[in-house]
Formats: sequence, C-alpha cells, structure tokens
Amino acid sequence: MTRFGYLSFLTDYGLDDGFVAACRGVAARIAPHAAVIDVTHLIPPGDIRRGAAVLAQTVPYLPPAVHVAVVDPGVGTARRGVAVAAGESVFIGPDNGLLSWAVAAAGGAARAFWLTNRELWLASVTATFHGRDIFMPVAAHLADGAELAATGTEIDVADLTALPAPERRIRDSVAEGEVLTVDRFGNIQLTITAADAAQIGLKPGGTAHIRWDRHRLTVPYRDMFGAVPPGELVAYADSAGLVAIAVNGGNAAKRLVLAPGARVSLAAAPATIRA
Amino acid sequence: MTRFGYLSFLTDYGLDDGFVAACRGVAARIAPHAAVIDVTHLIPPGDIRRGAAVLAQTVPYLPPAVHVAVVDPGVGTARRGVAVAAGESVFIGPDNGLLSWAVAAAGGAARAFWLTNRELWLASVTATFHGRDIFMPVAAHLADGAELAATGTEIDVADLTALPAPERRIRDSVAEGEVLTVDRFGNIQLTITAADAAQIGLKPGGTAHIRWDRHRLTVPYRDMFGAVPPGELVAYADSAGLVAIAVNGGNAAKRLVLAPGARVSLAAAPATIRA
Amino acid sequence: MTRFGYLSFLTDYGLDDGFVAACRGVAARIAPHAAVIDVTHLIPPGDIRRGAAVLAQTVPYLPPAVHVAVVDPGVGTARRGVAVAAGESVFIGPDNGLLSWAVAAAGGAARAFWLTNRELWLASVTATFHGRDIFMPVAAHLADGAELAATGTEIDVADLTALPAPERRIRDSVAEGEVLTVDRFGNIQLTITAADAAQIGLKPGGTAHIRWDRHRLTVPYRDMFGAVPPGELVAYADSAGLVAIAVNGGNAAKRLVLAPGARVSLAAAPATIRA
Repeated sequence: MTRFGYLSFLTDYGLDDGFVAACRGVAARIAPHAAVIDVTHLIPPGDIRRGAAVLAQTVPYLPPAVHVAVVDPGVGTARRGVAVAAGESVFIGPDNGLLSWAVAAAGGAARAFWLTNRELWLASVTATFHGRDIFMPVAAHLADGAELAATGTEIDVADLTALPAPERRIRDSVAEGEVLTVDRFGNIQLTITAADAAQIGLKPGGTAHIRWDRHRLTVPYRDMFGAVPPGELVAYADSAGLVAIAVNGGNAAKRLVLAPGARVSLAAAPATIRA
Repeated sequence: MTRFGYLSFLTDYGLDDGFVAACRGVAARIAPHAAVIDVTHLIPPGDIRRGAAVLAQTVPYLPPAVHVAVVDPGVGTARRGVAVAAGESVFIGPDNGLLSWAVAAAGGAARAFWLTNRELWLASVTATFHGRDIFMPVAAHLADGAELAATGTEIDVADLTALPAPERRIRDSVAEGEVLTVDRFGNIQLTITAADAAQIGLKPGGTAHIRWDRHRLTVPYRDMFGAVPPGELVAYADSAGLVAIAVNGGNAAKRLVLAPGARVSLAAAPATIRA
Repeated sequence: MTRFGYLSFLTDYGLDDGFVAACRGVAARIAPHAAVIDVTHLIPPGDIRRGAAVLAQTVPYLPPAVHVAVVDPGVGTARRGVAVAAGESVFIGPDNGLLSWAVAAAGGAARAFWLTNRELWLASVTATFHGRDIFMPVAAHLADGAELAATGTEIDVADLTALPAPERRIRDSVAEGEVLTVDRFGNIQLTITAADAAQIGLKPGGTAHIRWDRHRLTVPYRDMFGAVPPGELVAYADSAGLVAIAVNGGNAAKRLVLAPGARVSLAAAPATIRA
C-alpha cells in the first residue's frame, strides 16, 4: 500500500554540505517511488520561527505529502520527534513548534505520535543528525505504506509544542502586529492580514499610516508593488494574504531597517495611530 | 494526451523562501508525471537581461519542455503573460523580453498566445505571484496535454517584446561588444563570438588585445583557461561559443572590475585597437 | 538493460548560472528514467579536497548510482577523465583525487577506465565544460545500460590519482590530526575519529584538551552539542563518526578562527598535550 507520492523537505542544513543529499539518499533507498520537493534548506541556523512561517505559507500549495521539517537546535536532547497527521498530510520533525503553524494551516492536528519505533530508523543513529537517521527514514516508510501508528507512541495533540500564533490585534482603528518575515526581495511581510486592513478601513487605493519604534511612514496602499513608481515605498496584500511593505524594484527591509519581530502598527488615518 | 515530460524553471525568487516550492507543488498537483529541471532561481532580482542570457545558453541542452521563466519586475501591471511555441518547446513567462533570446536560440517563435484563459490558472490569483498562480499552472496544464491555443488569445509573434540582441560588431579588424555575463568563477563572458574572433584573425595560440574604458590588456588567447599558469589572465572561447576572459584558478571579474554591460573591444594586433 | 536508477551530482559550478541545469538536461535526454540527486554544487571553486570530503561522507547514504563529481581546475589540460567501479556504484569525474576518498569509502576501486570513447560524449565537446560534454553524458549512458568497459581504455586502479588520506595519528596519549571541513553551522570537523578519541581515553562525559598553534582549549566532550548550554564550546563525535568542535547555537569556526587544514591535537589529560 503506497500512501504518499511526495515528500517535502525543509531544513536549516544549507546547500554547501552533503546533508540534504544524505537525507534524500536515505529516502530513495526506502521509498524510491516518492518524489521529494525541497521547500528550502536556507532557514537561518536554528531559526524555528522562520522555518514555521515558510512551511505554513508553502504547504497549502503542495500535494498531499509527508512533510519533513528539521530546524532543530535541540537535536539529541530531550525534545522528542513527532509525526502529526493533519489534513491529507503527515508532518514529521522535532516537537519544538516548527511544525505548528503548518499543521494549523492544514486544518489542525488530527493525531500525533512520538517517534519511538526504532525499527523505522536507520540502524545506526547519531546524536546530531536526526534528519538523516530518524526523520527522513520514518517519513519514507510512511510514504511507502507504513501505518502512522507504527511510528511510535500516540500522544495527545494538545501536548504538541506550538509556537505562539503570530501576534496581531485590532484596537480601535489600528491594526497592531509585527514583522513576520523578510523575503529575498527585501519585502517586509507583517503578521497583519489583508482582512485586518480592510477591517480598519484600509483598502487598495488608500493610504497606509505605519508606525514602529519612533518611526512614522505614510505610503500608498495598492494592489501590488508595481503600482507605484520604481524606487518608491508601497504597502499591499502579498501572495500569502498578509500586508507587506515593499520598495518597487528595491529592498524595503534594508531601507527601513526592519527585521522579523519588530512591532508595527497600521492605520488608515494618521490621527488614529499612536505609539 | 501527454505532451511534455519536462518543465524547466528559471526565476529570481531565490532559495531562501518557499516560493519555488510553492510553484513546484502547483505543478505536481496538475501534472504529476512531469519532471521539473531547475535552471536557476538566483537571477539577481529583476535582472531580465541576465535571466535571458542564462535561459538562452541553457535551453539548448534541455529536453523538449515547457520552459517557465519568471523575472518579472512588472508583475501585476499591464505587462502580459505569454506562451510562445519555438522548436519543440513552449516558453511561458512575462512578455518583457526575458524569453526572447531563448526563443531565438530555439529557432524563433512559431506561435504566441497571451495568457487570458483563467480556467488554466489557480482559482485565486494574487497580484504579485504570477509564477505560482498563472505561469506554472498554465505550463503544467500544457505538459498534461492542454492545447497551446487553450492558453488564451493568439497574438502576432512580431508583437512579442524582444530584448535587443547582445551588442557586437566587427569594424576594421576590431571586434566590439560588451560583457554579457560573469559566472560563479568570475569568468567574464563577452558578446563577441569565437567566430568573430576568428574573423579578425584571432585564433588559439595568438594574443588578444583587449580594451575597455581607458584600460588596455594583452593576454594569451588559448583553447582553455588551464593553458596558462595559475593566477594568469587568459582569453578563450567558452562553453557557449563566446569569447571569455578568465584568470586560471582566480576571479577575472574581480581583478579587472568588469561587470555586465561594460563595452569591450578585441583585436589580434595592438595597432588596430582604439578607444 | 538498465543498470542504474540514480545519478548523483557534485560540482563547484554554483547555483547562479545554468551549468547544473545544462548537465541535468543532457542526462534527461540520454537516461530519462534516472533520478538525479544533487550532492552539492557549492564546493568552493577548485577545492578538490573539500569536494572529496563531502562526497565521501555523503555517498554511503545514497542508493547505488553513477556518481558524477566535477571539481576540475585542470579541465581541458592533460588530466584524464575516469570511470571507477567501486562497491555497487560507478564514480565519474576528473582523475585529480576528487573521487578517491569516496571510492575508498565504497570499498576501493575494482576497475577503472580512462574516458576515451567519444561515442558516449556529446557530439561537440568544449574545452572548459567537461561536466556537460563528457562526464554527464558518459554517466547517463552507463545508467542507461552501457557497459563500463565501453567508456574507454582500462587502466590500472593503482594508477588512479589519490588524495593523501586525511592526516591523523596517535602518539603517546595524544591524537593528532587536522581540520577536515567546516560546515554551514560553523562546526569544525577534525580528521580524528571517535575511535581515535576512545583509544586515547577520551569518552563522552570527559574533558577534551585541544591544542593548535599556540592555542589551548579545554572543553567538555559530550554526545552532542546540545549537551552544553547555548553559547558554550563542546567537542563530540559528529554524524560522520569524526570528532568535531562546536558552539551550541553558535559558530565555532568563527569563534576559534579555525579553517580546513589547520593542525590540531587532542588529549584526555592536559599534561599529555604538547606543541
């Protein structure tokens, strides 16, 4: 019984070493039929939150799969490895919150197992490379038809480690949130959704009043960054449905010196926004 | 009817985010049989010319495919998306010149369509991620057997946006051109072809006289960079049939401070080369 | 007769250009059934030793394959291309030592051939891109069922170029070696094995006394870097069975300014270690 035609794979292993390839080799030996889709391997080392955000925004576009994600600064310590069924997929990785936003995006955890069945692991397990020795072999066995319950001990889904949901709230006519990610282009993605923006009266064609620290910024709110002249700042609803700040043809994160975690407020009218 | 076993994929999306994976997921859902060959995703953001050059030099070595290329600083604005049949392949991307050199290398555009048929797109289309929402789904439907004519409205191939051909000409005994690309090794690829070099009397074993701005350089013209001692400059016909300047074991672009677009003259004899 | 379902591919081509894709296209045309596993393409340009180390540590986890490796500063010169049978795999690349550690890890060379049969190459061979024009087409033909003996002229396996084995020895109660590689996380991998460490009395739970140049360092020797508090140095046996020095959650190579090739001594007791 083949259950999954796809594995997806997200890590902070980088592309300079053979780490990713070793994992893919392990998968190929166990589940040669399964295609692997690399989500990214350039999560900054140990940045669980960044890994969680990228995974959650990408998985909705992937086919049903065993999604393997490894950003695992606690590898080899007491943190447990888990397999979590959600939607039509299974998520495998360390139980450190990395999976939590993607699991939520997939409809929430239906069942969860602590990976304790060594029969699905490599024969020799090292203390520092569980991606190769535990997570990927378990995932490949699942793709090859192993039962989810064979991965280990069932645990209460309420006991899974979850990252706090990205912070955002609406107070009076101001949407408050933080910088969630900065992408390759320097576009600054906020935790504030396009729906939040609409709720505070900010719609494409309007003007966004943005505040962080002691900075204030007034920029056009448009459908896309291409709606303003090259070199100019703009706010818009990005491809994940979140409010983003960009420079058309430039790098907003560098210009504004805004990094993930920075607290940001957004309003449709200048008077409503305060420190 | 399956028409294409391969998709190729070139973008400026980078590898840090999940953008490429989201597109691959979309392709896998629509055309699971199609293998994806990544050309590169590290085109500098918005650098259409660089994307065009890499695509044109790579496609001749790929199997017949639907080639998807997205370097698209005008995403969401009036620029149209197109599907262009050329040789045994179809090229899909923004009509901003990105495809033009590869289409020419494939024998020229036979037919072209403006992507207007939303039935081949994702159900929800964002303003800033047409690679995921439009280009890749259309490409995958083509790979899965959809007719080219189903992609939209046929347009005159003469109306497609074309980048000017890389500048080069021969005047007296001097070949004039410009720097087309610089590769990872720092090798400087000119728009001047090996045939141009031969025409001005420059053949392997000879001496190349190179001039740009106020600089003059005299280097051996050889079959390969390995023909000169480590650390020395050399000119040669590279793997794309273009004249290139390299440092054996070093980085010529850094040493000479030459970047794409710089105008360069080449001659076989010193007297013939002027500013 | 199909002989190999997999090709693996390691180079210093980088990911910015279309070089890797051109090779994959060549493989797809000749052996469309063969899956390609990228080991890495980010070997520093011309760094044969680094390429050899990554290949040797990765191949044991890959399925039987034709392993293509190209770090080839001498491309186009007299250095020959070879195909080497070892274990269940074939290794293809320049005969400059790049393959030697992986071949040894696979059980040693059984047979070796100098790639002289142009019928397995591309019709047009450039002087500087043998990965595309020679190595990958030969590999794909092998994957597609060509006989190893068809690749060229058999040579004595003793004549293959071998890198010197990574230097390490035990003298009195001190293990001497060098830095083999530094990975993305800044973990410093030594040539000294975990077995060497045990032989000099250094076991998890003990204390490692490390010396290089005029530096001395005393760090816990543990099962994993996660066994020490964040920000602290630790030595441990890494996922390749080699002694490594890490900073938990940090970058040891940057902190200690240790790079590949540096000579390092290791002891379990401070008195035994000298310059």
